[in-house]
Amino acid sequence: MRDPLPVTGAWRPGDPPGRRQFLTIATQRPIALEGGGQLRDVTIAYETWGDLDADAGNAILVCHAWTGDSHATGQSGRGHPTSGWWEGVVGPGRGIDTEHFFVVCANVLGGCQGSTGPSSLDPATGRPYGSRFPVVTVRDMVRVQAALADHLGIRSWFSVTGGSMGGMQALEWAITYPGRVRSLVPIASGLAHSAQQIAWGAIGRRAVTLDPKWRGGDYYDAEPGEGPHAGLAVARQIAQITFRSDGVFTDRFGRQMADRDDTFELWQRFEVERYLEYHGEKLVRRFDANSYLWISKAMDLHDVGRGRGGPERAVARIGAVPTLVVGIWSDVLYPAYQQRHIVDLLSTQGTPAEYVEIDSPDGHDAFLIDTEQVGAALATFFERVEKGP
Amino acid sequence: MRDPLPVTGAWRPGDPPGRRQFLTIATQRPIALEGGGQLRDVTIAYETWGDLDADAGNAILVCHAWTGDSHATGQSGRGHPTSGWWEGVVGPGRGIDTEHFFVVCANVLGGCQGSTGPSSLDPATGRPYGSRFPVVTVRDMVRVQAALADHLGIRSWFSVTGGSMGGMQALEWAITYPGRVRSLVPIASGLAHSAQQIAWGAIGRRAVTLDPKWRGGDYYDAEPGEGPHAGLAVARQIAQITFRSDGVFTDRFGRQMADRDDTFELWQRFEVERYLEYHGEKLVRRFDANSYLWISKAMDLHDVGRGRGGPERAVARIGAVPTLVVGIWSDVLYPAYQQRHIVDLLSTQGTPAEYVEIDSPDGHDAFLIDTEQVGAALATFFERVEKGP
Repeated sequence: MRDPLPVTGAWRPGDPPGRRQFLTIATQRPIALEGGGQLRDVTIAYETWGDLDADAGNAILVCHAWTGDSHATGQSGRGHPTSGWWEGVVGPGRGIDTEHFFVVCANVLGGCQGSTGPSSLDPATGRPYGSRFPVVTVRDMVRVQAALADHLGIRSWFSVTGGSMGGMQALEWAITYPGRVRSLVPIASGLAHSAQQIAWGAIGRRAVTLDPKWRGGDYYDAEPGEGPHAGLAVARQIAQITFRSDGVFTDRFGRQMADRDDTFELWQRFEVERYLEYHGEKLVRRFDANSYLWISKAMDLHDVGRGRGGPERAVARIGAVPTLVVGIWSDVLYPAYQQRHIVDLLSTQGTPAEYVEIDSPDGHDAFLIDTEQVGAALATFFERVEKGP
Repeated sequence: MRDPLPVTGAWRPGDPPGRRQFLTIATQRPIALEGGGQLRDVTIAYETWGDLDADAGNAILVCHAWTGDSHATGQSGRGHPTSGWWEGVVGPGRGIDTEHFFVVCANVLGGCQGSTGPSSLDPATGRPYGSRFPVVTVRDMVRVQAALADHLGIRSWFSVTGGSMGGMQALEWAITYPGRVRSLVPIASGLAHSAQQIAWGAIGRRAVTLDPKWRGGDYYDAEPGEGPHAGLAVARQIAQITFRSDGVFTDRFGRQMADRDDTFELWQRFEVERYLEYHGEKLVRRFDANSYLWISKAMDLHDVGRGRGGPERAVARIGAVPTLVVGIWSDVLYPAYQQRHIVDLLSTQGTPAEYVEIDSPDGHDAFLIDTEQVGAALATFFERVEKGP
């Protein structure tokens, strides 16, 4: 029998750091968060690849999605249970060429792979925040990343990019710090979470809370094996369907059975069910249920126009920053019309924005799967930006 | 404070029957089910509207979907918590004209509104079946309906129709009993559940089981308020998203808040969340969690080709029965390509099949919402069938 799962899949201080580096900010006074809460002693876990130019002009910030972390590229090993989530895009000679660029990726605020999140110790109590962790927004994530940029001596990024929530961060970067972003590549993302995206987020959160082992968010003291694994797994399975596509599921699984079916049983599984279970269990081993909830809420709160007089006025702040918006035709979660809308809005506000569509049946996850197309689009765009207008 | 919810939303013997009539079959020997189980003393709850012709030639069978029941049309009242689910389609002068046709609708086997299902008493033990209820299939549902047709003296139906799982039953009727169906109208349905449809079904079932009050399916003895309401509500909310569409959610809810949002809280709700909660709670009051699971499994097992040498050979049994297949362009759960596929397959097998697409943004539920279009398509088709080729 396997050992019981740890209560949380979060990386904890004392675990092997792997390639992570750490910066702690807000040690003197807390950060005031957009939603009204505050945090102090905020740790940012990050990784870098390549060398920073003397004038710090070749830095690219890669922003991760919901369950990503700082390990954008590189092998698995001590401290990194999985290989990099953008392995095919970031590396020597790849779309984001680490022989040419200095690449930075930080675990988001609210995350669970070294940056401060719900599983971190609250300095006020010495115990995990759990249910007391404040709501954070994509803007809060970006503000913390700006402190990291300061620390690294990066006045402005050559580019900020990412898919899904990574794209939300990229947009917020260019809007919050227009002078600090010289080009911008949001992928499979939008200007604000739509009602359907909120609905999917809310449903995943409700699924976690159905699990009595979630204990209102304060489960960190439970015995091994007693974490909210079942709830998190179901939440992930829901998301997994929206991340892929009808066509890919049909091609890959069809109506194939995983279990014997000489007689019919209620819990007999089709192959697609086994696939979903596999993805649920995989996430549980490397992720924290509360981080899943808090980050999901941050995405639902994503709205570049909030407090800025609407989306038009918000994106007008981006100015003349060259922007490549990438969509995926088979994406049902962040449909391509939302990316085209970004381009339209940016164009009317005077931003040189272009649109590239990934030709992939893989749905939303194509930005993680079809890395050759994504990398090629990035490389072509970066080359053009470097040449200048 | 409101009274606590009953443990199950099932109709139970002793509750007001409303318009229900009952037929009990398999009293001498049990029915052998497709999946290997068996059932005896099987009750079928049904309703009828209109008058049967002397030659019993004007009977239409209306088949309901997942959480439907025999109350296809008519007001709410004692025994019927909601008005008919196809109120706009079935009635005097409507698409299925009850002044012209004798209309029958039966609660499916496995259901919870009068027909035998998991909440019914097992005659062997005198206690609710619960977890011991056998898996039933759409074919089993149809076989039981055939016994009802015999009882009513209906040798052949003028038409069999229904949306979603109702369409699956219609297809199975024409394939299992080709001589007993003179026309056929499956709506927003398919020849077999696809991998993605199975995935959605499986996820809903898992959500129910996360609720500790589900108790492995044997919750009927619990105290009022202690039923698996939370799990069933979340399952319904998941389904509800797939039943509608991105566009309708955006138009109707956008990013409107239901709760105050001067500061951000994790459980603060957007309007779309309140809407989903409303639908979850509504279902819990009128439906049984186990019926939800068992019927969902029946849909996942839907495959007209099983044991018949594949879908081509299966539909070849339909022969020259005029068939109207109805799709909805905005349906993401049973996408229109699946209905066009039915027409293609039937046409190559010699069945006079035609396709009509409902022009509605309402998604899968358009067959329940846009009843004017659905009714008009049915009326036109029936008129043509009556005239003959």
